[in-house]
Amino acid sequence: MTPSDLLTAPASTSLQAKLTNLRVLMEEYQLDAYLIPSADEHLNEYLPEAKQRRMWLSGFTGSAGDFLVGRESSWLFVDFRYHEQADLEIDLSQVQVSKLGAEGHKTLVETLETLGQEVSGFRLGFDPFTIPAEQYRTFQDKLKSAGVESVPVDKNLVDIVRSQSPWVESEPIPTLGDSKVFHVPNEFTGETIEKKLDRIREAMRSHKTDIFPVTKLDQLAWLFNLRGWDIPYNPVFIAYAIVTLNDAFLFTNLARIDAEVRQSLEGSVTLLPYEKYTETLKALISQESQSKVLLDPKQTTMGTYQLIDKNRIVETANPVEGMKARKNEVEIEQMKAANLKASRGIVRTLKWISEQLASSKQLSELDVANAIAQFYQQQPDFQGLSFNTIAGAGANSSIVHYGTPSPDVLLKDGQFFLLDSGAQYLGGTTDATRTIIVGEPTPEQILRYTEVLKAHINCAMQRFPKGTTGVQLDGITRSTMWMEELDYGHGTGHGVGAFLNVHEGPNGISKRASEPLEPGMVTSIEPGFYLANWGGIRIENLYVVKNLTPETELLAAPSKTPWYGFESLTYVPFEKRLIDVDRLEHRQREWLENYNTAVVEKLTPILEPSEVDWLKEAVN
Amino acid sequence: MTPSDLLTAPASTSLQAKLTNLRVLMEEYQLDAYLIPSADEHLNEYLPEAKQRRMWLSGFTGSAGDFLVGRESSWLFVDFRYHEQADLEIDLSQVQVSKLGAEGHKTLVETLETLGQEVSGFRLGFDPFTIPAEQYRTFQDKLKSAGVESVPVDKNLVDIVRSQSPWVESEPIPTLGDSKVFHVPNEFTGETIEKKLDRIREAMRSHKTDIFPVTKLDQLAWLFNLRGWDIPYNPVFIAYAIVTLNDAFLFTNLARIDAEVRQSLEGSVTLLPYEKYTETLKALISQESQSKVLLDPKQTTMGTYQLIDKNRIVETANPVEGMKARKNEVEIEQMKAANLKASRGIVRTLKWISEQLASSKQLSELDVANAIAQFYQQQPDFQGLSFNTIAGAGANSSIVHYGTPSPDVLLKDGQFFLLDSGAQYLGGTTDATRTIIVGEPTPEQILRYTEVLKAHINCAMQRFPKGTTGVQLDGITRSTMWMEELDYGHGTGHGVGAFLNVHEGPNGISKRASEPLEPGMVTSIEPGFYLANWGGIRIENLYVVKNLTPETELLAAPSKTPWYGFESLTYVPFEKRLIDVDRLEHRQREWLENYNTAVVEKLTPILEPSEVDWLKEAVN
Repeated sequence: MTPSDLLTAPASTSLQAKLTNLRVLMEEYQLDAYLIPSADEHLNEYLPEAKQRRMWLSGFTGSAGDFLVGRESSWLFVDFRYHEQADLEIDLSQVQVSKLGAEGHKTLVETLETLGQEVSGFRLGFDPFTIPAEQYRTFQDKLKSAGVESVPVDKNLVDIVRSQSPWVESEPIPTLGDSKVFHVPNEFTGETIEKKLDRIREAMRSHKTDIFPVTKLDQLAWLFNLRGWDIPYNPVFIAYAIVTLNDAFLFTNLARIDAEVRQSLEGSVTLLPYEKYTETLKALISQESQSKVLLDPKQTTMGTYQLIDKNRIVETANPVEGMKARKNEVEIEQMKAANLKASRGIVRTLKWISEQLASSKQLSELDVANAIAQFYQQQPDFQGLSFNTIAGAGANSSIVHYGTPSPDVLLKDGQFFLLDSGAQYLGGTTDATRTIIVGEPTPEQILRYTEVLKAHINCAMQRFPKGTTGVQLDGITRSTMWMEELDYGHGTGHGVGAFLNVHEGPNGISKRASEPLEPGMVTSIEPGFYLANWGGIRIENLYVVKNLTPETELLAAPSKTPWYGFESLTYVPFEKRLIDVDRLEHRQREWLENYNTAVVEKLTPILEPSEVDWLKEAVN
Repeated sequence: MTPSDLLTAPASTSLQAKLTNLRVLMEEYQLDAYLIPSADEHLNEYLPEAKQRRMWLSGFTGSAGDFLVGRESSWLFVDFRYHEQADLEIDLSQVQVSKLGAEGHKTLVETLETLGQEVSGFRLGFDPFTIPAEQYRTFQDKLKSAGVESVPVDKNLVDIVRSQSPWVESEPIPTLGDSKVFHVPNEFTGETIEKKLDRIREAMRSHKTDIFPVTKLDQLAWLFNLRGWDIPYNPVFIAYAIVTLNDAFLFTNLARIDAEVRQSLEGSVTLLPYEKYTETLKALISQESQSKVLLDPKQTTMGTYQLIDKNRIVETANPVEGMKARKNEVEIEQMKAANLKASRGIVRTLKWISEQLASSKQLSELDVANAIAQFYQQQPDFQGLSFNTIAGAGANSSIVHYGTPSPDVLLKDGQFFLLDSGAQYLGGTTDATRTIIVGEPTPEQILRYTEVLKAHINCAMQRFPKGTTGVQLDGITRSTMWMEELDYGHGTGHGVGAFLNVHEGPNGISKRASEPLEPGMVTSIEPGFYLANWGGIRIENLYVVKNLTPETELLAAPSKTPWYGFESLTYVPFEKRLIDVDRLEHRQREWLENYNTAVVEKLTPILEPSEVDWLKEAVN
């Protein structure tokens, strides 16, 4: 069965009808094109259903991708992760898929530039609450010179076509089940709300600002030590916040705030209904004629930006982002505990897979996705998965974000099986990927897997000085693969929250990750290799950046520079049948041996004896 | 003799007098501080003497560094390359040296932020023609929020203190000797002025612009296939240019333009006096109410920017910069030829040094600097040095940009000698560094040299896909050094012009070099290691980026991605007595063997038999 049969893209007639209706509205607003980005008012990566406008309209289910609807044509812009998936999900008779980075494929801006050259006075409409302020400005600059006028439209046209009520107003907020907002105690967070607010206010003062709106949901969840389940996988709740030098306001659906949460906020935070955000922000600004607003144009929508008089705005990096990324000691301990639980779950899953296959049972992608969810759930304090499990067998392993494990696609001899999964435990978030071989590997499979493993180790073992950026580490990771002309089209790593979003900023390891890595930051390291119809490999652990004790060997020079390195949070064996140890350099081999020893040491105390036997065999 | 004795910093009374005079002017303009950057109206790295305002005022001779004069204190901000040199050259009783990147040292902006917090309504003055437009804006944004007002001052206050006449007006332009502007024939440049103008106009049209001012001297030298010697080491001449869709204007001192140059420009370029630039630009803009000006805010001063109505400006990357960087076939051949000549010169110098030392002659830094200049000059088409030779013995080798080779500092047993030099030949520019050991090396010297060599090879041998940036390659270069906690505070590589500036953009290899490397670009690779009072190591070759033939081995995946690599332009032996071959990995050793073979092959035909013998011994 081919993957395209498994997907539930809307029928083409439906897409056509939606586009027709949208184009009628575009005509009304005199727009030549309308842009539908993935993002919503809170710049979420995962969206509440009501805000999945791009997905609803286009049928493309990926987590990133812009949709542009013109008068006659429309375009979906997707990055490498979704090159294959987009082709499978999109009605190609209606929509052109533009594969960013592929030869001959245009970016959104390039496409608009071409359109602007064809039609004079070209008008591009969009909802300003779906675009970060900075992106909007870059956009505007580029488009203006191409003769394209950007037109913010005060209503979201897709919501109108969809008859989607504006739930952000006073209606009850739809939640997953009946889950409430809940308080996370200090033994999990390591810092009280008051102390966090103190640090924020210090940052505000240092930028001579008085008012700081917080619009991203993971930022305000961190700031108020609160969580909720309004969005799948991300333990956040829909809200806005505003911090002033003397007060803090949390705007959310008050019906969901119980006495315990109220008590946790008492004395520090004023609770207000969600729909009061806009007017409260305006009122706070106009209270004092000299007050200034701290605003990060990358982290705030153009919608919020437009509410504020320009000369009141002080643009600077959102201070929550950096504080949240540098985990404190308690958070690091919680992350270690959570990832050890997850490692145990993955090891049990791998053992279970090998036993099923050894006894000639048939296993489908969905069987494994269900099994690992069970194994994760068996651990204490389990809260849910941290993202949709990717369980890809054979050719599906090459679809980087393959999100639809099938009951009909079986694990077959000679093929890869890629398992990328994670869980949320109270206090910690996990994410790990292992690729295994079913049956006997070919030499080509072994060599390519070994090269991906080497890339992983290159990064994981790297010592680096304070100030090193994710771009430099990205190059270091890829260097040995590049020597073999192997590469992967996604980043090497992303930040991970502490019982928060599995993707968080500001740190990352990629071509664009210019943020220096600092102690306490958590990152994935996940190089891969993907070839359509051949298969895919990805090897992912989470790591925390830590201070290294000074090197005392001959070569090191006396220096005050702090040196950093990675400590693994994930302890799961690699696929030893796919490793050609002779291709590893001395340091890589040493790292692998130490890692394998640590896997056995960390997991032995929490596994059954039979599981320990399996584990020892797996790393031997 | 210590290096501080060798320098000709102005006496402290003189500095004090200058500062006093400047502060009187600051008082007049009601300025709390005045900023003197290194740059001039053409954003030159090397400046004509009349524009060396920062150097004249502060006494610091480095190529980069901002000088800030406050009402009572003043500060010099220098990067790692100049941490040592600044201390030696600056009168520390008058000026604080802020060493960027060093613990506890503030940047210019941080210093101003502190000052802004101390004094309300703090006014910072500067000459807008000495700051790139983009830097000015970033500055203004940051300073505004710190309560510092940026005040462009229409006269350069240092020029007033210095009684420096504004030579940019109608006076004859001072030149090195009586050198004239001269035309470089097409057999050296590979492209006519007309074709270059065609490409520029195509870029202008694609950005819907009509007028394009060119203010950087190497850009207009490239564009018009002209050279001159108004600035030491850089074969450029003082001029402005404006390109329109139908015309091109070159503004320079017409007295220096001879018949041959006139003829080379005939029909393509209108010649005008230098001082007509401003009014011509304004006139061209006002000729048509709809005309737009292409302007790169990184490559143009705020002074030029301010001449143009803001809504007439289309900001985009300067198209000359990218075209100039991608050398054509003829330029690459010229660069190869020039660098082979230079390699011969360096080999002869190294042989001469070893013979002098073997016969127990005393050699000073200056002896070697003079010798290599002679050896460079012996080759045909020699035009001059491409920068001030760095010849540092012993402790001086750790001063990254040590620019004052001394007749009194001798090459001594057990010490490093670092020789960084380059030449200009008609058609090509060169730059190379070798570090040698005098007498017997210590194990520590060997190990650290070997680590720097490994870093060099890491980068030089790297295959990389289209789109790879200089930041990624910077990380790759440093990775093995970092494992030993070794590092260097400068970039790994810089772009090099074809018979143009030895430093050119947009490509580079460093933490900030976000430009992808493309075929035809020339870059240095020059990792190093420096420790004050111990010594310094740097190993530098030039390379051209080239397309690689596809890898046909098992691992490579079928892909349309172009793969690139480096081809060396420099062929000079490394110091074999400092190489511990056992520390090299297999691939590094292979690269080194191939390089050594190539050194002998390339140079044998152009060396004397006795020189070939020495060479073979040097790489054996």
